Amino acid sequence: MSIRDDMLAIGQKAREASRALSAASGTAKADALNALADLLESETEAIRQANAEDLKAAEARGLDKARLQRLTISDKVLGSMIQGCREVAAMSDPVGEIESMVKRPNGMLVGKMRVPLGVIAMIYESRPNATIDAGILCLKAGNAVILRGGSEAFHSNKCLAGLMHRALESAGLPREAVQTPPTTDREAVAELLSLEEYIDVVIPRGGEGLIRAVTEQARMPVLKHYKGVCHTFVDETADLAKALPVIENAKMQYPSGCNALECLLVHRSVAGEFLPGVAAQLGPKGVSFKACPESLPLLGGYAEGAAPEDWGYEFLDLVMAVRVVADMDEAMEHIARYGSNHTEAILTESQSRAMRFIREVDASLVVANATTRFNDGAQLGLGAEIGISTSKLHAYGPMGVKELTSTKFVLLGDWQIRE
Amino acid sequence: MSIRDDMLAIGQKAREASRALSAASGTAKADALNALADLLESETEAIRQANAEDLKAAEARGLDKARLQRLTISDKVLGSMIQGCREVAAMSDPVGEIESMVKRPNGMLVGKMRVPLGVIAMIYESRPNATIDAGILCLKAGNAVILRGGSEAFHSNKCLAGLMHRALESAGLPREAVQTPPTTDREAVAELLSLEEYIDVVIPRGGEGLIRAVTEQARMPVLKHYKGVCHTFVDETADLAKALPVIENAKMQYPSGCNALECLLVHRSVAGEFLPGVAAQLGPKGVSFKACPESLPLLGGYAEGAAPEDWGYEFLDLVMAVRVVADMDEAMEHIARYGSNHTEAILTESQSRAMRFIREVDASLVVANATTRFNDGAQLGLGAEIGISTSKLHAYGPMGVKELTSTKFVLLGDWQIRE
Repeated sequence: MSIRDDMLAIGQKAREASRALSAASGTAKADALNALADLLESETEAIRQANAEDLKAAEARGLDKARLQRLTISDKVLGSMIQGCREVAAMSDPVGEIESMVKRPNGMLVGKMRVPLGVIAMIYESRPNATIDAGILCLKAGNAVILRGGSEAFHSNKCLAGLMHRALESAGLPREAVQTPPTTDREAVAELLSLEEYIDVVIPRGGEGLIRAVTEQARMPVLKHYKGVCHTFVDETADLAKALPVIENAKMQYPSGCNALECLLVHRSVAGEFLPGVAAQLGPKGVSFKACPESLPLLGGYAEGAAPEDWGYEFLDLVMAVRVVADMDEAMEHIARYGSNHTEAILTESQSRAMRFIREVDASLVVANATTRFNDGAQLGLGAEIGISTSKLHAYGPMGVKELTSTKFVLLGDWQIRE
Repeated sequence: MSIRDDMLAIGQKAREASRALSAASGTAKADALNALADLLESETEAIRQANAEDLKAAEARGLDKARLQRLTISDKVLGSMIQGCREVAAMSDPVGEIESMVKRPNGMLVGKMRVPLGVIAMIYESRPNATIDAGILCLKAGNAVILRGGSEAFHSNKCLAGLMHRALESAGLPREAVQTPPTTDREAVAELLSLEEYIDVVIPRGGEGLIRAVTEQARMPVLKHYKGVCHTFVDETADLAKALPVIENAKMQYPSGCNALECLLVHRSVAGEFLPGVAAQLGPKGVSFKACPESLPLLGGYAEGAAPEDWGYEFLDLVMAVRVVADMDEAMEHIARYGSNHTEAILTESQSRAMRFIREVDASLVVANATTRFNDGAQLGLGAEIGISTSKLHAYGPMGVKELTSTKFVLLGDWQIRE
C-alpha cells in the first residue's frame, strides 16, 4: 500500500469511528477516560522506558534544551496527565446538551444542541503530553482524532496511544477513535492534509515553521497560533514590589512556553525605580536583556542594546526585550504592532487603566495584575487544552472540550408553517 | 490605479474603520441603525427607481423567474429591511459584554469578553436586501464590511450603500465601515480574496458556483453553505391532516429559498393514504414531482419517474422529489447520503422518534413538526441574518450578530503568579 492509501484508510476509519463516538453515551466516554487514568498509573514504568528511549536519541542528535524539556515526561507531567483524565472524565458530557430553548411568538421552541465537530487531526512536535491532552479532549467532545506527533517522540507517543486503545476498548468504544499514523514521514502529513472529506479540522501545535507549513497545505480549516510574543506593561501606578515576582514568574517559570513573557514595557516615570531591581533579581538567575537605549543603562551588566528584530521576537529562552514607554497609549501601540494576539498583560493599581487595557488590547487573553503564564486551559478552568487559537474564528484562546464542539439549531414545533 | 491597488485601498480603509467601530459605543451604533431605518422610509422612491432600473436590465437579459424574484425589492422586502434595522438597533450591544466571570481557586477572575471579528467581506448575488442585512449586522457587531454584490443589482446596492453612508456619518461613525467596490469585475473579487491581512472572514451568498469559486480562491476563512437540499420525513405516526399544510408551506411558500423543501420522504405504511392528497393539493398549484417507483402511481398525472440525479438535487422551483421509505432508519440514511447539512425535518406524533431524529440527524437546523422554511435568522429569533453556515466551525446555521463576533479571555488578577 502507498502512503496515500494508508492515510486514506486512516481518514475513512476515523470518519466511521466519529459516527460511533458522536452517539456514545456520556458514561461510556467517562469510563474510557477513567480507564486511561488507571493505565497511566499502572503502566508508569513502560511510559518511562519509552520516553527514555526518545530522550536518548534526542540527546544524541543534539536537540536544544527547550526541546528536550518539552520532550520529557517528568513525574509532574505524568501526574498532570492522570489528573487531566480524571478531571475530564468528571466533567458533564457536552454532547446533546441544549443550553436553553426559547419560545418563539408562534409557539415553537428553538434551541441549540451541542454536537461534535467530527474528525480532528492533530499535527504536533515534541511534547508527548499533547498526545494525551488531545486524545482525551477529542474523546469527551465525541470526535475521532488522528494524532501525528513528531519523530522525536515516536516511542512515547506509541506507548501512550496503545494505552488509549486499551482504555477505549475497555469501555466498548472503537479503538479507531484515536489513530496514530504508522510513520512520521512528511509525505504522510501532506496526504492527511488533503483529506477534506474525512477530516473536519486540523490543529497544529509546535514551532512556527510547522504551523505555517500545515496552514499552507491544509484543505480544511486550521485552528492555531503561530507564536506567543507576550508583553507585560508596568504602569506608573503599579505596586512595584508586587510587580517584580509577577515579571519573574512570567519570564522564568517555563521560558519555553508560548505564554512566557518576551517583552517588558515599563512606564517612563517608574523605569528608573523598577528596572534596576528587575536586573538584580533576574540577572543572577540567568536572564539577559535586549534593551532599548533608555532602559539599557538601568539593567546593569545583564543587558545589551536591542536590535530592531528583537521587538516582536519569541525568544523561548531566558532572554527578554525591555522597552521604556511614555505612557499606556505607547505601550498599547507597541503591542498592536509587535504582539501576536496571544497574551498581553498590564500591571497597574488604576482600575480605569486596567479596564481600558482589557477592552482595547486584541489578544486571546488580556490580563490585569497577574502573570502571562495563566494563558493555559487548565489554569483558566477549561480542564486540559488541545492548543491555543490566536485567530478569532471559532475559538480565540485555549481550546478545551467545548471548543471541540459546535451547536446545531433544533426546533420543536406544533405543526407551524411560515406566513 | 489598477484594480489591485483599488482593492488594497479598500482593504486598508476597512481595517482602519474596523478599529474605530470596535471602540464605538452601543449608542452610536444604535443611532446609525435607526437613522438608516428612517432613510429607508423617507427614500423609498429612490430605492424603487434604482431597483426598477436593475429589474428592467435583468428582464432584458432574460434572467429566470427565481432570480428576478430575488432581485425585487417589494414592499414586503423593504418593510422587513426597515423592521430589521429597528430590531437590530434595539438589541443590546454585544461588544464588550462578559457573560460571566468565574473565580479560580487562586482568587483570580476569568471571563470571556465579546469582541468583533474585524473586517468581513460579503460576496453575494442578486438579492439586494442582503446589502442591508449584512451592513446592519456587521455594524452592530462592530465589524467593518466590504459588500460586493452582483452586477444585476448594481443600482439597487449603490442606492442602499449610499443610505448606509449617510446613516453612519449622522452617528459620527466612519463611512468606510461599509464599502462597496466601484466595480463588479471578477478580477476585483479575486484581489479582495487575496487580502488576508485586511479581511478576517469572507461570507459568500448565492448560487453554488459562486460559493465554490469564492471558497477556492479565498486565503481567509469562509463561512458558507453550498446549497440547501432539505428533506421532510413523514413518519407513520404523523397527523396527516396537519402534515399536508406543512409540506405545502415548505415547498411553495418561497420555492427559491435555500430552506425550501426539495425531497419528501414518506413512511411506507402511510404513503398510500398521504401521497394522493399531496398530489391533489399541490399539483393543481403547479408543483410537479420526481417520484420513486413506489410513489409514482400515487401522485397521479403530476409526477414522472425520478432519475438518480434527482436525489440530492436543489430544484429551487416548484418541483419536488418524492420517495417512499421502509422506516425512519431508511429516511435518516437517505438524508445522511443526499442531504446538505442545511435543514431536515420529521413530522411525527411519536416523541421518541422526534427526539432520536433531532439527536442523530446532522444538519444546521433539525425540525420536528414544522416547516423547513423556519431556517432563517429572523424566524429563529436572531434578528436579521447574514447567511447560513452548513459547516460546523465557528457557526452552524443562520448567522446573526452574535455569530459575527468572537470572545477573548479576560483575567482580573490580584498579582497572582503560577506555581
